[in-house]
Amino acid sequence: MPELRRDPVSGRWIIISVERGKRPSDFISPSQKRTLKGFCPFCPGNEHTTPEDILTFREDRDNPSSRWTLRVVPNKFPALQIHGDLDKRGDGMFDQMNGIGAHEVIIETPDHTQTISTMPLRAVEDILLAYHLRINDLKNDSRFKYTLVFKNEGEAAGASLEHTHSQIIALPIVPKTVKGEMSYARRYFEYRERCLFCDIISQETRDMKRVIYENSSFLAITPFAPRGPFETWILPKKHSSSFGPVNKNFSELAEILQRILKQIDRLLEIPPYNFIIHTSPFNEEFNDYYHWHIEIMPKLTKIAGFEWGSGFYINPTPPEAAAEYMRNAVIVK
Amino acid sequence: MPELRRDPVSGRWIIISVERGKRPSDFISPSQKRTLKGFCPFCPGNEHTTPEDILTFREDRDNPSSRWTLRVVPNKFPALQIHGDLDKRGDGMFDQMNGIGAHEVIIETPDHTQTISTMPLRAVEDILLAYHLRINDLKNDSRFKYTLVFKNEGEAAGASLEHTHSQIIALPIVPKTVKGEMSYARRYFEYRERCLFCDIISQETRDMKRVIYENSSFLAITPFAPRGPFETWILPKKHSSSFGPVNKNFSELAEILQRILKQIDRLLEIPPYNFIIHTSPFNEEFNDYYHWHIEIMPKLTKIAGFEWGSGFYINPTPPEAAAEYMRNAVIVK
Repeated sequence: MPELRRDPVSGRWIIISVERGKRPSDFISPSQKRTLKGFCPFCPGNEHTTPEDILTFREDRDNPSSRWTLRVVPNKFPALQIHGDLDKRGDGMFDQMNGIGAHEVIIETPDHTQTISTMPLRAVEDILLAYHLRINDLKNDSRFKYTLVFKNEGEAAGASLEHTHSQIIALPIVPKTVKGEMSYARRYFEYRERCLFCDIISQETRDMKRVIYENSSFLAITPFAPRGPFETWILPKKHSSSFGPVNKNFSELAEILQRILKQIDRLLEIPPYNFIIHTSPFNEEFNDYYHWHIEIMPKLTKIAGFEWGSGFYINPTPPEAAAEYMRNAVIVK
Repeated sequence: MPELRRDPVSGRWIIISVERGKRPSDFISPSQKRTLKGFCPFCPGNEHTTPEDILTFREDRDNPSSRWTLRVVPNKFPALQIHGDLDKRGDGMFDQMNGIGAHEVIIETPDHTQTISTMPLRAVEDILLAYHLRINDLKNDSRFKYTLVFKNEGEAAGASLEHTHSQIIALPIVPKTVKGEMSYARRYFEYRERCLFCDIISQETRDMKRVIYENSSFLAITPFAPRGPFETWILPKKHSSSFGPVNKNFSELAEILQRILKQIDRLLEIPPYNFIIHTSPFNEEFNDYYHWHIEIMPKLTKIAGFEWGSGFYINPTPPEAAAEYMRNAVIVK
């Protein structure tokens, strides 16, 4: 019997389609070994082909001529433009504004052959520190209401360049998806006087059915109602409403993020995936009801007419099974 | 300068990314000519490999041994199961129910080489009539609150079989996407005492910038804030809240639907696409605020981390340009 499940954070329903039940091996497509073919604008020596650095980490932080280890640059083909006014306006019944925003790229390593799951842990900490520094800088621009950090890994997940990178988009509007989660979390808090996510963490760590891994500060779970197979969330165990202003020690977050990505790579043979960071909007950065988290989604199923038209998702792998596969995936440290 | 636009029906914002401005030729991928390779369960002679017909149209309606022209059958691998009780229940903070629903397949023609854009117009009318008959039958099952009609054309749009077909899923819950549209439409009506969609139709037919085609009963437009290039909506010009109970003459709807699909095929060289029918839920079938319509989405761009995380869409083709390309696409009748 298939099951209908409702995600308490977004209100979306998903169908766990056991008749179509699938194991990790059903999703494996030819994995893409990273080898440099042709020109890469993110490789060392080609720095002049990207816009100028907004932020640079180097091997020796005190020596500006030492080799760079991470760069943040404006996106050369930005979805939004940094200069100008919003100029909100209507055209009869339609609302529009200028496409003002920031669109930055985090080049995570100079090494074309690495990914987050293979690079030294220290480099993963630097990526998270770069997100932190950029969010806190973009927050000073009063035109922006939100910054979304996201990563597209692999062509099928939307990456147009192979060299591992993530992106930050600062937006003049709080995105619909975040608004939805904020609204569910706020309503839950009004009723229960507790954080929705803290309650999920408490139930998940009691049940353990969907827990993949935890360290002293973070928990990794497959959510109760995942949109697709092996969707994974990483949450801080203690209530924390925003990613931006957390302290600058990212070692534990780096450890759990890299571990999960290693397990996904091991289990699904280096699949394409997306991850995103959901955090509170700037104007309510500190609150009792929302809880920042990372959502990781391996790109294994297709979004088709039913999903477009309904907002339902059909997931052929129950999250309890996915969590077990993930727990048992042997990873090489 | 990119533009941010808000869709008045869903509240979602989209980014018209003019810097990435794209023409139809930028989207063309190797088109898939239909030729029968291997076994097809939807071809005549293989009827025994699908579950038994729920509805059959034949060349001679009075002769049950004449050749079938359209079949509706249960999906062999249904996402939801027809037998059983909903058994709504909670597990701590999580809500679930049995995956009860109907999942049917409309085999639109016996001819493996045809699509909606190439078949005789009469056959398109029959497809629409089949939707109508199935919706009105499924409505009698009190467990169901909604039926979603959708079509996945081409592998990239999620079709697992090449032989042209569409699907109907009956659901025990009104889908989130429809709930969202109903809520925007209801709020608009409360404020304006007019139908949101009727007002859109009135503004679009005054502006003509986004009108692709109209016949005496239907209008085809590119919406003001489309999720992707060449997204097209077909709406009845006169207020009508539900697809199901409309009269049984589908000739005009068939004409405009086939024409739009012909234009899309011509312009984008037979691209993969999805279409869905959005109509009012069963429990408010007749109302003043919602207006049923068809949404057609050629599958030309990828959904990546930004779209997942934000609910924003980045569209490289302004709908005014898309409508002009569509109007100028010469079609063979």
